[in-house]
Amino acid sequence: MYNLTMLEANGDPEFMTSLARGLAVLRCFADEQRPMTIAQASRLTGLSRPAVKRCLHTLVRLGYAAQEGVSYVLRPKVLALGYAYLSSSTLAMRAQPLLDQLRDELHESCSLGVNEEDEVYYVARAEVSRIMSISLRVGSRLPLYCTSMGRVLLSGQSKENQRAYLRRAKLVALTPHTQTEPGDLLALFDHVAQEGYAIVDQELEIGLRSIAVPVEGPDGVVAAINIGMQATRITVAELRSRYLPPLRKVAAELRALVTNPRR
Amino acid sequence: MYNLTMLEANGDPEFMTSLARGLAVLRCFADEQRPMTIAQASRLTGLSRPAVKRCLHTLVRLGYAAQEGVSYVLRPKVLALGYAYLSSSTLAMRAQPLLDQLRDELHESCSLGVNEEDEVYYVARAEVSRIMSISLRVGSRLPLYCTSMGRVLLSGQSKENQRAYLRRAKLVALTPHTQTEPGDLLALFDHVAQEGYAIVDQELEIGLRSIAVPVEGPDGVVAAINIGMQATRITVAELRSRYLPPLRKVAAELRALVTNPRR
Repeated sequence: MYNLTMLEANGDPEFMTSLARGLAVLRCFADEQRPMTIAQASRLTGLSRPAVKRCLHTLVRLGYAAQEGVSYVLRPKVLALGYAYLSSSTLAMRAQPLLDQLRDELHESCSLGVNEEDEVYYVARAEVSRIMSISLRVGSRLPLYCTSMGRVLLSGQSKENQRAYLRRAKLVALTPHTQTEPGDLLALFDHVAQEGYAIVDQELEIGLRSIAVPVEGPDGVVAAINIGMQATRITVAELRSRYLPPLRKVAAELRALVTNPRR
Repeated sequence: MYNLTMLEANGDPEFMTSLARGLAVLRCFADEQRPMTIAQASRLTGLSRPAVKRCLHTLVRLGYAAQEGVSYVLRPKVLALGYAYLSSSTLAMRAQPLLDQLRDELHESCSLGVNEEDEVYYVARAEVSRIMSISLRVGSRLPLYCTSMGRVLLSGQSKENQRAYLRRAKLVALTPHTQTEPGDLLALFDHVAQEGYAIVDQELEIGLRSIAVPVEGPDGVVAAINIGMQATRITVAELRSRYLPPLRKVAAELRALVTNPRR
């Protein structure tokens, strides 16, 4: 995940290796999800312990991290970085109120995702409260090949890009239902492009179904909107008949806003 | 805002100035809220143009930013940084479902804030959809002295810390109702500590009222929960009678979870 070749200058005199290392250390907290020692961060980032120690020391001095005994935790100031993206992203800003309305209308959680470095990034989300909720939020990342948003995003790509993705990606059978054959997946992407939506039935996680539609920009698919829910609560046919029309309506509204941002 | 003394090593050989500069450039996008040129980022950060250029070049190579003509925009990958905090913060993770429930019960937006470098940081938020919505989200920051969460957070501090804050803070009259006299504010903090809640009536913005209660940890106030709404929709008396009891209930639940995190 922390591609070390990306952290090195590779002869680029303008590249700041220190900045790359510091950001890698910040990011690795997302995977560990608890206080981390220098040794753990070193293992996750592939950086030496002294290098990690200097990064953490600097992050502490800047207020982005704090030391607790031998471990380190992130501080809320880190949120200001993610907020910098959200507040500068026309797409995320415009989508949020539309997703909020959709959630209120359907009483289901809705999300907006984009393709970023071969993953679906959740850039906006409107959530309902449930005892058994799906632990996704803005900033969450999921694979492209086995999620409804991922397939919608891939279906907007050229055949060549789809094939290149399938060669790069680790196609893991996360459940017994997960499609992992590149040929089958290419056919699925075609199908999604033709139909204009994707339904994924328990390929990411047993018990989870979801439906997604594309958000088109002037140059093709720029994002996807989806609704996911527990398989016990809905059949695939109901998922399509009940949720495809409102999802398409919101995608069209968002398309209009993104195409004429008036910013 | 971008305290330059914080960006310099000041004789600390372990301090990574490059990392500090890169993070300052990332953050300044939050204030500009649109594509930014090198000159604009230089003005906002106080860094030289060549220094900003190197930071942006590195951020582009790492996938955190993209160049659009002469300007730069952030990419969704930046969200992974904010997400690193959220997914590693017990408080934010535990609070979110409680806030979602409270929103569904009250049909009002609810937030959780912490005191970070003399500002209220929104670390969790559950939002209702409204035509006239309040543009706050996770990662938003507001002043302490004129917000209900800020006053609750300050009321948990010692008199000495409160006085030190009032000396450091720029006490600006954001509306004709804003209290800016240090003596009056100290008395208000006392009142909030005694009553166990704060109501702020149009001191942050005309037309906006809010109520907040503290979330206590083993060593005092660790966070605040609030509900804010348009003044036309509710009187101060109603704000108290209708929302104080459910806010206190959630604060108590969160206190129990934070005190026994079982992590």
